[in-house]
Parts: sequence; structure tokens; C-alpha cells
Amino acid sequence: MAPPTPRLVVPIDLTKKPWEQKVPLHNRFHPEIPPVADVKEGEMFRVEMVDWIGGAIGDNDSAHDLKAINLSEGHYLSGPIRVFDKEGVPAKAGDLLAVEICNLGPLPGSEWGYTGSLDREHGGSFLTDHFPAATKAIWYFEGIYAHSPQIPGVRFAGITHPGIIGTAPSMELLNIWNERETELQENGHKLLTLSDHLHQRPFACLPTPDGCYLGKIEQGTPEWEKISKEAARTIPGRENGGNCDIKNLSTGSKIYLPVFVEGANLSTGDMHFSQGDGEVSFCGAIEMNGFLELKCEIIRGGMKEYLTPMGPTPLHVNPIFEIGPIEPRFSEWLVFEGVSVDENGKQHYLDASIAFKRAVLNAIDYISKFGYSREQVYLLLSACPCEGRISGIVDSPNACATLAIPTAIFDQDIRPKARKVPVGPRVVRTPDVMKLTYDGNLPTTKNPSASA
Amino acid sequence: MAPPTPRLVVPIDLTKKPWEQKVPLHNRFHPEIPPVADVKEGEMFRVEMVDWIGGAIGDNDSAHDLKAINLSEGHYLSGPIRVFDKEGVPAKAGDLLAVEICNLGPLPGSEWGYTGSLDREHGGSFLTDHFPAATKAIWYFEGIYAHSPQIPGVRFAGITHPGIIGTAPSMELLNIWNERETELQENGHKLLTLSDHLHQRPFACLPTPDGCYLGKIEQGTPEWEKISKEAARTIPGRENGGNCDIKNLSTGSKIYLPVFVEGANLSTGDMHFSQGDGEVSFCGAIEMNGFLELKCEIIRGGMKEYLTPMGPTPLHVNPIFEIGPIEPRFSEWLVFEGVSVDENGKQHYLDASIAFKRAVLNAIDYISKFGYSREQVYLLLSACPCEGRISGIVDSPNACATLAIPTAIFDQDIRPKARKVPVGPRVVRTPDVMKLTYDGNLPTTKNPSASA
Amino acid sequence: MAPPTPRLVVPIDLTKKPWEQKVPLHNRFHPEIPPVADVKEGEMFRVEMVDWIGGAIGDNDSAHDLKAINLSEGHYLSGPIRVFDKEGVPAKAGDLLAVEICNLGPLPGSEWGYTGSLDREHGGSFLTDHFPAATKAIWYFEGIYAHSPQIPGVRFAGITHPGIIGTAPSMELLNIWNERETELQENGHKLLTLSDHLHQRPFACLPTPDGCYLGKIEQGTPEWEKISKEAARTIPGRENGGNCDIKNLSTGSKIYLPVFVEGANLSTGDMHFSQGDGEVSFCGAIEMNGFLELKCEIIRGGMKEYLTPMGPTPLHVNPIFEIGPIEPRFSEWLVFEGVSVDENGKQHYLDASIAFKRAVLNAIDYISKFGYSREQVYLLLSACPCEGRISGIVDSPNACATLAIPTAIFDQDIRPKARKVPVGPRVVRTPDVMKLTYDGNLPTTKNPSASA
Amino acid sequence: MAPPTPRLVVPIDLTKKPWEQKVPLHNRFHPEIPPVADVKEGEMFRVEMVDWIGGAIGDNDSAHDLKAINLSEGHYLSGPIRVFDKEGVPAKAGDLLAVEICNLGPLPGSEWGYTGSLDREHGGSFLTDHFPAATKAIWYFEGIYAHSPQIPGVRFAGITHPGIIGTAPSMELLNIWNERETELQENGHKLLTLSDHLHQRPFACLPTPDGCYLGKIEQGTPEWEKISKEAARTIPGRENGGNCDIKNLSTGSKIYLPVFVEGANLSTGDMHFSQGDGEVSFCGAIEMNGFLELKCEIIRGGMKEYLTPMGPTPLHVNPIFEIGPIEPRFSEWLVFEGVSVDENGKQHYLDASIAFKRAVLNAIDYISKFGYSREQVYLLLSACPCEGRISGIVDSPNACATLAIPTAIFDQDIRPKARKVPVGPRVVRTPDVMKLTYDGNLPTTKNPSASA
Repeated sequence: MAPPTPRLVVPIDLTKKPWEQKVPLHNRFHPEIPPVADVKEGEMFRVEMVDWIGGAIGDNDSAHDLKAINLSEGHYLSGPIRVFDKEGVPAKAGDLLAVEICNLGPLPGSEWGYTGSLDREHGGSFLTDHFPAATKAIWYFEGIYAHSPQIPGVRFAGITHPGIIGTAPSMELLNIWNERETELQENGHKLLTLSDHLHQRPFACLPTPDGCYLGKIEQGTPEWEKISKEAARTIPGRENGGNCDIKNLSTGSKIYLPVFVEGANLSTGDMHFSQGDGEVSFCGAIEMNGFLELKCEIIRGGMKEYLTPMGPTPLHVNPIFEIGPIEPRFSEWLVFEGVSVDENGKQHYLDASIAFKRAVLNAIDYISKFGYSREQVYLLLSACPCEGRISGIVDSPNACATLAIPTAIFDQDIRPKARKVPVGPRVVRTPDVMKLTYDGNLPTTKNPSASA
Repeated sequence: MAPPTPRLVVPIDLTKKPWEQKVPLHNRFHPEIPPVADVKEGEMFRVEMVDWIGGAIGDNDSAHDLKAINLSEGHYLSGPIRVFDKEGVPAKAGDLLAVEICNLGPLPGSEWGYTGSLDREHGGSFLTDHFPAATKAIWYFEGIYAHSPQIPGVRFAGITHPGIIGTAPSMELLNIWNERETELQENGHKLLTLSDHLHQRPFACLPTPDGCYLGKIEQGTPEWEKISKEAARTIPGRENGGNCDIKNLSTGSKIYLPVFVEGANLSTGDMHFSQGDGEVSFCGAIEMNGFLELKCEIIRGGMKEYLTPMGPTPLHVNPIFEIGPIEPRFSEWLVFEGVSVDENGKQHYLDASIAFKRAVLNAIDYISKFGYSREQVYLLLSACPCEGRISGIVDSPNACATLAIPTAIFDQDIRPKARKVPVGPRVVRTPDVMKLTYDGNLPTTKNPSASA
Repeated sequence: MAPPTPRLVVPIDLTKKPWEQKVPLHNRFHPEIPPVADVKEGEMFRVEMVDWIGGAIGDNDSAHDLKAINLSEGHYLSGPIRVFDKEGVPAKAGDLLAVEICNLGPLPGSEWGYTGSLDREHGGSFLTDHFPAATKAIWYFEGIYAHSPQIPGVRFAGITHPGIIGTAPSMELLNIWNERETELQENGHKLLTLSDHLHQRPFACLPTPDGCYLGKIEQGTPEWEKISKEAARTIPGRENGGNCDIKNLSTGSKIYLPVFVEGANLSTGDMHFSQGDGEVSFCGAIEMNGFLELKCEIIRGGMKEYLTPMGPTPLHVNPIFEIGPIEPRFSEWLVFEGVSVDENGKQHYLDASIAFKRAVLNAIDYISKFGYSREQVYLLLSACPCEGRISGIVDSPNACATLAIPTAIFDQDIRPKARKVPVGPRVVRTPDVMKLTYDGNLPTTKNPSASA
Repeated sequence: MAPPTPRLVVPIDLTKKPWEQKVPLHNRFHPEIPPVADVKEGEMFRVEMVDWIGGAIGDNDSAHDLKAINLSEGHYLSGPIRVFDKEGVPAKAGDLLAVEICNLGPLPGSEWGYTGSLDREHGGSFLTDHFPAATKAIWYFEGIYAHSPQIPGVRFAGITHPGIIGTAPSMELLNIWNERETELQENGHKLLTLSDHLHQRPFACLPTPDGCYLGKIEQGTPEWEKISKEAARTIPGRENGGNCDIKNLSTGSKIYLPVFVEGANLSTGDMHFSQGDGEVSFCGAIEMNGFLELKCEIIRGGMKEYLTPMGPTPLHVNPIFEIGPIEPRFSEWLVFEGVSVDENGKQHYLDASIAFKRAVLNAIDYISKFGYSREQVYLLLSACPCEGRISGIVDSPNACATLAIPTAIFDQDIRPKARKVPVGPRVVRTPDVMKLTYDGNLPTTKNPSASA
């Protein structure tokens, strides 16, 4: 009759570096990264996590640390965790693993996070052609609420969630990933329809031993040498889940992950106190250390039963998510729209990425009329619970995308008004401490990855 | 002290053809289409509307009427309505027109609608490469609820809204539209990054006298001859609002439209009883006859005050929307995900359109496991209040898009289950009457517009 | 394949008096009031209704008409409607009648309503000892929103619902009602625990021929003479449903009514555009003319299956309600509390009525600090969508009741503030036109009903 | 720039008895109970709490421990906490203390709670005449969800809140309490209008040295002897807040408490994982150990500014509450109604307590048709997030109260159905372990407190 206190399977000691943790972390997906813990179906367990880049970003006034990070170290993940059913039989390829998020939050004593954008030369972000410099904002948590000294006048309840949760790929699936991403990396520069800014960013992040951590497999061993060259980077979401960044995956949610290897080998990380749809500024959620309390169920044969492969092999599937019932109630939303005409006035064909880019830019321009710098708004929209929607995707040639912002997060009324009451501290609200540290030259159209 | 009964400014007689209405309709955007009514700031007025294609689609068992429509007749709009302030001064270029939706609904006696997809050769839809045939489902309304004999086992409350609401463009803005869309129409076939299916659809719908109605300007007059060749088609949403298809624009919403011509010349139409984000099957909402009760406010100089042009001219702006407080409460959502890898396994670069396509296809495949044909689900997802989100748009190379479906619209539990209770009438639920009428040959990769 | 346009079974002509309507109205419950219409299970039908007192209250600046009404005329109901199953067999005693509200609203051309309190000598209201005078506020509807010239600075979306919906009682049930209410009327003055104000109101409203309308039974006939003396008044809700005033019974709701007579004989009326929990000022909702579009289902034997009688006979049951999914989203609520200590400081024992009275009084006092008279707030809280809860009912001796008010209905921030920014137009907001017309003498403690 | 980790001002060691805690607890309200901690305006601090009765109830299969508790020991409170402004000046009588709940939850390692009702002879509960025996159910927490082995088939997200939060009374206010409650205790038996069951419970809980704890004041000292005889019991909510049991006071809520003594002397306790409106079974929430993370603000002079005394002295006020934005979304509710006719068929006059009792009894009877015992449902409705409303309080003679239950908490569809599909495991769902241990004789009408 003992109560179901969650068993701690991955502890984090914040006084240590990510590679010094007692239960070692990893930052790649590969079938041969050994599990660090076993759990049983129905059992509640607790996983603690460092933030995506393992403590490299400080609670300070400068964005210089963001410029100094080694991107190939992200994301530090906790796991893999091997899942068994109640009879002790492991999950098997072809099963579905249902993972329920029972509880989550920041790590006690670490109630803060940050939102940042990277330098254009350093990987950039969604709007890197408009915001080429690294920027950073710190957020402090007061229970469910976050506020930032760099973005005053704003406070909101977070919808906390893991940015990354996924199973290990099989070798076959891993090969598919590496092939298709290499193809893009090599031929992406031939793409014509995307707006220029996107070309300024790397097309793909291919396997690299640089900064690679593989959990129990020690760096420098032959095993590490082999795996580090083929293990998938964690940047994009893929068939195994991974970095989906679905902002509503909070307490009470359930994630149905396909199983590709025996035991499922569940990994998770990249905790977000809050995120806007799109996570536009790249490390754009409120990134933090955190914990998950989870419960797993194995649906035997569930891949075949519930998922339909789409593509050349049976492995081309995607997870399914069930959103939990708890969210902040917002009653008023201001909605910004974009269509697939780019900033140069050029018409694109049903391109939702460009339409969404326009919607975000429109929102930034609008809100910056209320006393904020455009950089402040860029980070805010990346971090606050705003909703990015595809409203229309059929009406040639314009896709129509929207970004909806809950008005209650502001301490002033940001709606358009006929009677021009001076709307808030339009000029005085200068950022306290945010440093814009773009030290590079003026933006060029050079594509760093294409030339690499 | 008389109560604010709305004044009927555009009446519709459903026994008449769209071109026979007492207050004539139009189906193009052009600055010289004459207003049919004047309204004052603060006054409530009522606008009635035929469905987008003017009654050409019948409440019957066949999709043949969908194959017979003249696409260039859509969308029949009510208006233009000229707006004056309380002193009698008209709205002027540079103002913002705030339009509040006080009430809306189907026309009394016409409590039904339809959802359809077009034949591939006839314009197609978002998934035309997967669903090349015209299909149709009829929906009957029981107050706030809709149900369909073609898609049994589903019932939901609609979030009713106008698909189209917009102001008249200035001549300068119209020219911009025509130039950029002509450029795309002529050079779109050179695009490389879009998946094949999109190339099977027209790139743009350029001005054409065919099926053109210009309100008070009679067909065949010299004025009509001139305008019909330059007036913009109503298919895509643009700077003036237009066909935005924002599904939450229901009662209590407010739309802030830029004003480009004196009087603003507000037009509206394309009423939807309900629509899913994306409106994926093209005439994909629940299309119906309907009415709006509106109230306008003029925000003088509001374009400069609140909108930031993005592009070569001050006209490159987008409207702003404020979503009303009334919506059905759904507590559980099942979420399908897609990344920017296409159905052939090819990797694309942060392409939200492809990611969203995958999410929709995943949802169709999944739900079709519960006793539905894939055509039924395609129409359902186009019509029901599902949410299409851009979850992540920065994690190269995969954009991650999601489609969230409220589970309560089904009369069975559609969630994945470990204990395989036979999930619903998996086989017996055959469509009653939906006719799939694709008479063409097998899909080809020919791009009809490119070859035109 | 005809669409399900609702069949109009009770039309209302607003140019006529309630007793002149083509389909005659009634204002009593009695098994022998003849049905005016038959409907079939599954059929959608439309019922139109006058406001509760049949047009006696005008859209004007004075509460004098409220003083002139004949209370025994309320409530004018539409029906009774006899319900048959699809085979033509009527509902029978012992069945449950499930009534779905598909649609509802004000009558077209009559988009206004009023909230009032009665003079103490005329029946009073919940707070008649604090507000002895008749008061009145007019509300105008702009679609889903209501606003009042008498209560400026407030606007809210209504949760529209019928105040009364019920079946006809059997003769046996009617006798039970008359006996127990007569007993109270005769002995109620012996009650000690209620605070004085309640004693100033009638204990019960017993049958009376005065102002009695019985539908098809003409006044003055022997049948009318007999029935009018025994038919139940419509003021209180009872076993048959009736005047329940459940404010969330809006579109999409379902009401499960016990059936006591053949055909069920459904009656409805007392439409409210909006109401606060408690309806504290008596004609305290936003009273209006209106319509319902309904659909019935008969659950054979449902009373025994689903309802458990509680009391001496099997007839002591209550209906069940299913609340629809559509409501305005409010995110912030200010909550006022009361405990069962009365205004004289006297302790009562777990008395929720007194606790709720205190909560309402606390709310009135608080909000009146923001520029309103106490009479304005009293009417407002009776009409707006505020929630009255029983928070605790076990902690002797204090019941704890709360009244929660959505803050978004005000055009100013009504929350307590540390920095005393002058909170709103505290003085200038004088009522435009509300007339307080209490012409009587000072309040006395005389109980008008006890002395009758 | 240190992040706002909350400072722990009252730690709890669950291995120790409540009277052994390092920072001593108290279970009375009195101005002279010394503060145990000081906090500053704006500072986040953490308060830990034992459950209301200090660990006397075990996680086991029997209700015997509920019979053994000493009621006069409840509720163990943490505090008093003295509040200072940023300049170090304490809160003063006449101020308002705004307390924001930033975070809360069970104590780590103690993720369980219980719901119980007391024996009739032991204090009883709201329905003690129907449920005279002590009963108990254990709940286990899985993150936001609770489930009970004693009430299978039910699972819900809790709206966690403190049952008690309040300031210290002044001596003047304390005297008022003691006088009015003594008066009731002595003369309550003369009350006639309340139904019999209520008379079977104590009218009031007057001061008693029995089981009295006064924090830093040691038992047996002269100070303790004096204070223990005059200090108020914590059972009822009063002017200082206290045991309000407002179930929505969860994260993000703000409580505006009147200040009666220097420093405000804030106390809190009685944590509830979840509670239904009314908390009908007395220790009827899900009682647990827990913590609060709080932040205070002093509104100088706020009592006069915002509260209006109602009664003979300026002290007759009530706190104000602001409900936070986070709650589970429920879309369907089944609503049970009661009117003020008691179980014997006797008519009462606008008595909301009786109406609510009937609503609760109706709900219990209904849900017990779905495989539950009535005792199971009684505890369930006391613990789950159901809403108790006062729907109508003016329609003589019937108050109308409702209890709304979210249908999603059940694993079966509990709505009435026409086609009698066997609704769930109607018989088989027997309680696993709940022990009903009513060992007394049959209920009598003897009022134990009146005879005391």
C-alpha cells in the first residue's frame, strides 16, 4: 500500500558538469547507446535533466556565453531508459510506448531559465536575416509564472514541457536519417524557393564526434569512435519523436512513441518552462534544468495497429500525442497574419514557412510600438505561450499563417484604439540589461553551410 | 431609445441566382467596384451572403455538381459597403477599419452546408496527389451542432465565421498583386523544393472576365470589360484581408483592416459553419449561406499608427484580428505530427507546408482505422474544429507541424489502447451516400498551370 | 434529404398581448392544460416566447412599470407540447424526456431586455431589506454582447438560456405541491433562523385565479374556474423542472425531465439573455422575448432507471441537466465570500442562504467603490455571468459561500491595488437614467404574507 | 541577480509528530500566538504543512483511525508569519495583505491523501443523517492526477489549494467570535427550520484547552493556560479568512486578507489535493501534507479602501480572492439539482443549505447506479472537482441549488441513455478495501452538542 513516490532513475547534480553526472548523459541518437536505467510498465519514475546545453549559459547580463557555446554539444539528454512490461519482457520493435507525463517542473533551487538567439554565423534562428546578433533574456520563475528583467511589463504562466522526448532509432532508421540529411546538406544550396535568410543557416547538422557524449560509452574508446561518427544529432524532430517542441506537452499529456529497438530506450531533455509555437529564436523557449515524472505503458504491436508508414519503408512513421487537460485560460488573443509573400514583395507558392515568418515579423513590429525594442519582442514571442497556426494552405498562391498572442501577458492594453490615449510607457521602457552582442560584420548572403 | 436592431444592408433571396439579387453581388477585388450600401461608425448592420459559389452545389448524394462549377465564379461577395464616421466623413486611405462581428449564422431556412474537394484537373486541393477525385459531404445543422450522413458517428459544435472579409485595394495595390502573381504563374514551374502534388495545382488565379461579376457594373459594358481584366480574383488572402480563412473569427471577434480607398469598401462572403485550420480540401470548410451582423469603427491614421509595412511599398501590410471569447470547450485532443520529410522519404529544409501535409496524412491514416474511408476523414479534418500548428520552425532541417483533433467529436474513443477492445464498428461504418466521382485518368505529374 | 429547418410550433406576434397570441399561452402548471402542439422524437422544432411578464415592461427610463405589474400573471409560458416517439406513441408517466437545446436567442427585432427588482411591498427580492425600491436597467444586445445605458462601463457576452423548462405535473404531484406550500405559507412566520429581510417577502405563491391563463381553456368557463384554483404558480422550480434558473443551460445543453402525464406536456418560457447565479434581484436576469429550437428524445422507463425518489412518494425527484460545451472564456475572476453571520453580527448555523447573502453584499459594496451606485451593482450582479458557489457547508457554524465575478466585463481594472492610481471615474460615472422609484414608507418588519 | 528560490520558513519533518516540529505548529487563532518567521514584501517563501490532523490518519484499509482522532487537535497550522514591507515596517491593522500563491503541492515523498467522513457521534458530516458511519478512501497521486483503490474507475486532475489561510484576529475580533458562537451553541437547539440531520451535529466548536497547540508557547505555561481558553478553534471560516475551503484557490491565486494585528501574522494549513464545492463529507477534500510558495504585498489602509464592514463594528469584513488562470479544462458536466424541500417532503423557505443537500443526495443516488456504493459516491463528490452552485435564491419558496460533475473523471459514460446498453460494470465494481465502521446504534435525533 505504499504510495507511488516516483523512483529517481536519473539524478542531476547541478554543481557538476554534464559529463560528470553520476548517471551519464548523452547527446546523440543511436541504437547502441547503452541504457542507464530500467523501468517497469505502470511504475512512476523521475528523470532529472540539465538544460539543453548543459549549464553553459549563465544568469547574467550578457549574451557572450551564447556566442561561446559548442552547438554540437546540444542537446544533453537523460537516458536511455529501457522499458519492460509487468512480466519483465522488454518493449520490442513494432510496439508503441505510451509515456504519460505525470508531473514536471524546474529542478528545486534552479528556478530560472533563459531565451536566446544565436549569432547568424553561429547557426542563427528563424529570423536571422532580421536579427543577426546573439541576444539573451533571463526569466525568473515565481511558481507558475515567469518574468524577465530584460523584458519588463510582461508576466505569464508557463506551459512547461520537455522539448525532446524520443526512443532510440534502429540502425536501419538511423541510416535513413543520415542519407536524407546528407543529401540535403550537399544539395540544399540549389533550393530556390526559400527566402534568403534561411540560406544563411546550416541545412542540416550531420553526425560529428565533436562534442559527442554517448552515456556509458567513454570518449576515445573504439566504440565511441565508431558510434560518434554515425549517431544522429538531436536538433531536428524525426520518426522517433525527438526535438518536436510541441509546447502543450505538459502535465497529463501522453506520448505514443514507436519502438525501434528492444527496450525502447527512451531519452528526454531540453526542458522548457514555456515556449511559443515555432520556438522562433532557436534556443527560444525558456530553457531550463528540470525534471519529469513519467509512467509508461507498452502497446504490443501498436506500430502496425495504429501508425501507417508513409514513405519507402515501414519505419516512416511519426509519434502521436495526447494533450493534457491543464492549461492557463486566456480569454483574449490578438492575432497577426502573414501570407506567402516575402519581405521583398516576392510571391511564393503556398509556402507556410514564409507566411509564418511574415506573421511573426508583423507581430514583432506591432508590439514594438508599445515601448519595446524589436529584439525584446522577438525573444518574448519565442518564449511566451503564443499560438502559431496554419489557417489556410489551399488558396493559391497564398498560404495564410497566424500568430495569436494572449493579451493578458502584458501589463498594458495592446489592442488598437481609436482614441489615442498614450498607450503605455512607449519610450521609457528600455531594456535593463539585455546585451546585443553581434560583433560580426554586416549580414551577407553567404551561406556558411553551403560553403563548408 | 430604440433597440439596436441591425439594419439589413445586403439582403439575399435564396430563390434567386447570385446575379439576380436585388443588391448585386461581386466576385472580384477592384477599387472601382461601386459601393452598394453606406453605414455609419457604431451602427449595427446585417449583411446576408450566398455560399462561396452561389448555390451551385446541391443537398444531394453526388459530387458531380462540384465537377461542374466554374471556379472563376467564386467567391460571391456581399458589398462593397462604404463606411462613414459619425460626422459623415468617410474612412480614408491610411485609416484602420475595426469591424466587430456581433452575430452570425446560417440564413434562416437554409440550415445546411457542404464540404468538398475538387478534381485534380479542376484545381485540386491540398492533398490532390493523394485524393485526385472530387468528393462531397453534406452537413445538417442542429443549432450549434453539425452532422453529416456521409460521415456518420461524428457531431461537433461549429465555430462559425466568414472565410472572406476585406477592404477594396487601391489601384496601386492591385497592380502589385497582379505583377507578383503573374510572375509566379509564369515562373513557378521552376520551383524545386515543393513536393510534386503542389505542382499539379494552378500556381495562381489571375484576372479573367470569365464568370466575373462586378456588382452594380453590368456585364458587357465598357467599364466591365476594362475592370474584369484587371480585378483580382478572391482566392488568396492578401494585404486587404480577403480569404484568410481564420477559423476562430466568430462572434465577438474584431478585425482591423487597412483602408486603401475612400469609404474602405468592405466586402465579405464565403461563410463557414465550421472549418479546420488549413481548410485542406479546398472548399473544405462547411460552406453555407449565411449572415453577419457587424459594427464598424474607424481608427484615423491607424495604418501608420499600428501597421508596419514590410516590403518595397507602404502598402505591404496585413490586417490584425482579435479573437472573440466564445468557443466550444474541448478538453482532450489527439495530436498528429509531421516533419519536413515528404512521402518519398526526401528531406526538405524547414518546410512547414510539407510538415503540415505529413501531419494531415498521418491523421487521415490513423482515423481511417476506426471504420472510416480515407476520403471521409479528409473531408472531416477539413471541416471540423481541428487545430493546425507550427510547433517548431528552427530545428534544421525539420520543421515540425501538428494537427490536433478534439476527441469529443467522435462517438467512439479513438485513442490508442493497449487492451485491444475491438475499437468501434471498424468495418460496418460504410459511407451512406458519398460519391467519389474521379473520372479522370490516373494521376500524372503534369503541372496543368505550368503547361497552360 | 431536406435540411432540418426547425418547425415553428409556437409563434409569437410581438404586436399582440400575451393573451391574444394565435397559439395561446399559459402561466400555470396543471395536468389538464391542453397541449397546443405535438412533436416527434428527433424532430427539431421552434418555440417562441414572450418575456416572463408578457411585455409589461418597457424600454424606457422608469421603473414605474415594474411597480404596476400583476405578479400573478408571471410567467407566461409557451406550450404545453406533447411529445411522441417515432412510432407515434406518446411519452408516458415514468419516462424521462431528454430535451436538447439546439439553438436559442432573442426574437428578431427585439434585441433588448431588462433587469429589475421589485418594491418590497410588491414581493421584493433577495436583498429587499437593503434595496426596498423597485429599480430597472435596460440592456441592449449587440449580438452576443449586452450593454446598458443605466450601468455604463460594463459589457459582457451573455450565456443565454430559458429560465423555465418543465413538464406538466400529475394531479397527485400537484396536490403534493399545494399541500406543502400551503403549510409553509401558514406557518412560515414561526421560522426563527432566517434573517429579517426574508420575512418581508411572501413565503409562497399559492394558486389564484387572478391573472390566470390556461392556454386553450378560456377564462370564465367552468373548466377554467376549477383549474385556476388548483393550478400551481410558476415561481419556484419543483420536481417537474420549472423555474430552475440554471444560468448555463445554453445551446448544446440537454435537460432530462421526468414525465408525469401522457405526452409529457412540455412548457417553457422566461428567456434570459444572461443571468448571474442566484438571480438575486428577482426579475434579475436580462429578461427578454426569445426563441428555443429543441429536439426531444424519450427514455422509456427512465425515471425508475435513472432517478431515485427522495421523500414519501415516488414523485419526489428532480431533473438532471447536461451543460453544453459553449461558454465565454473568462480567465480572471474576483471572488467575494460570505459566511453565515448576518448583517447584525448574529451567528447562524451552516446557513448557505445567509452566507450567500453576505457574499453578494460584500461584492456590491466593493464594486460600488469604482464609480457605481449600490443599486447599479445589485442589478449588474443579478444579470452578468457571475458564479455563486457553496464553498464549504460542513465547518460548523459557518457555511461559506462565494460570488465570483469575471473581471473582464468591466472597462477598468477592479482589482485591489497597492499603488493608489485613482481607480477609474470614481465619481463621474453617474447613472444616466435609472430611476429609483421606491415611493413607500420606510422599511418595516411587517411580513405581508404572514398577515395575509 | 540571484534567482528567487523560495526561502523555507516553516519546514516539516514527516518522521516527527506535529508537536515535535522544529518550527512549532499551532491549531488555534489568537493575537498572542507568537510569530515563527518574518518575511518581506515581494520575497518568495515556502511554508510546509502537515495535513489537517497531523498525520493521525494512515494509508491503510480501515476507517478506525478516523474514529480515534481528537477533533480538537485540528487543524494544525504553519505560522504565524509576520510580514514587513520593503522598508522593514510591519503590516498594520487596517492594511490588506495580498498573498499570491506561486506554487503548491504535496510534500515530496508523501504523494497521497485521504477523504473521510466522521461518525455521527464524533461530529458527523453534511449528510450524517444518511451516512452516520465513519468512512475513508485513500488517494494516490500520479503528478496532477489522483486515483483511489477504494473508488475504482475514477481519476481526475486535482485543483490543489490550501483549505485554510488567514491572518490573526485582534482581541476585539476574537471576542466577537466567541460571543456569537457561544450564543449559537447555547440556543441553537431552538432553531426550527433546519432539517434534522443538522441538529445531530455540534452547533459550534468553542475554545478548549483540549488538544490545544500554540506554537512557541509551551503547553502548561500560564500563558498557554490563559490563551488556550480563549483562542478560536479553526473549524469555521471567519472575518480573517481561515477555513474557507475555496476549491479554486490554486497556483496563481491571490488572497486579499484584512490585517488585524501588527505583522498580519499569517497562518496556513489544511492542504487539499482536490476538493468538491461544499466539502460535504467534512474531512472531505483529499487531505494531505503539502507546501505553499507564497509572495506577499501590503496594501496600506486597504481595509478601509476596499472592504466595507457589514455589522456592528468595523471588523465585520471578509477577505477577497482572485482565482488563478490554471485549471483542468472539462467540457461536459452532468448537473444535479435540489430545491428546498427536504427528504420528508417538507417545504422550507428559500433554504439554500437544504436545496444543496438535495442536489448532493440526487447526485449520490444517480451515480450509485453505475456500480458504486452510495458511500463511495459520497466520498467521491466530496473530493473531486465538482461545482456546487446557488442557481436561484429568489423564487419563493424554493431555493434551487445544483451540483455539477465533470463526466470525464469516470471511465464509463454516466449520461442517461435511451438505448439501454448495459452501462458499465454496474454490479461488479465492489469497493476493494473501504471499511465502513459505524459501530454505534441506529441514528437518533438526539443533538449531542445541545445536550453537552
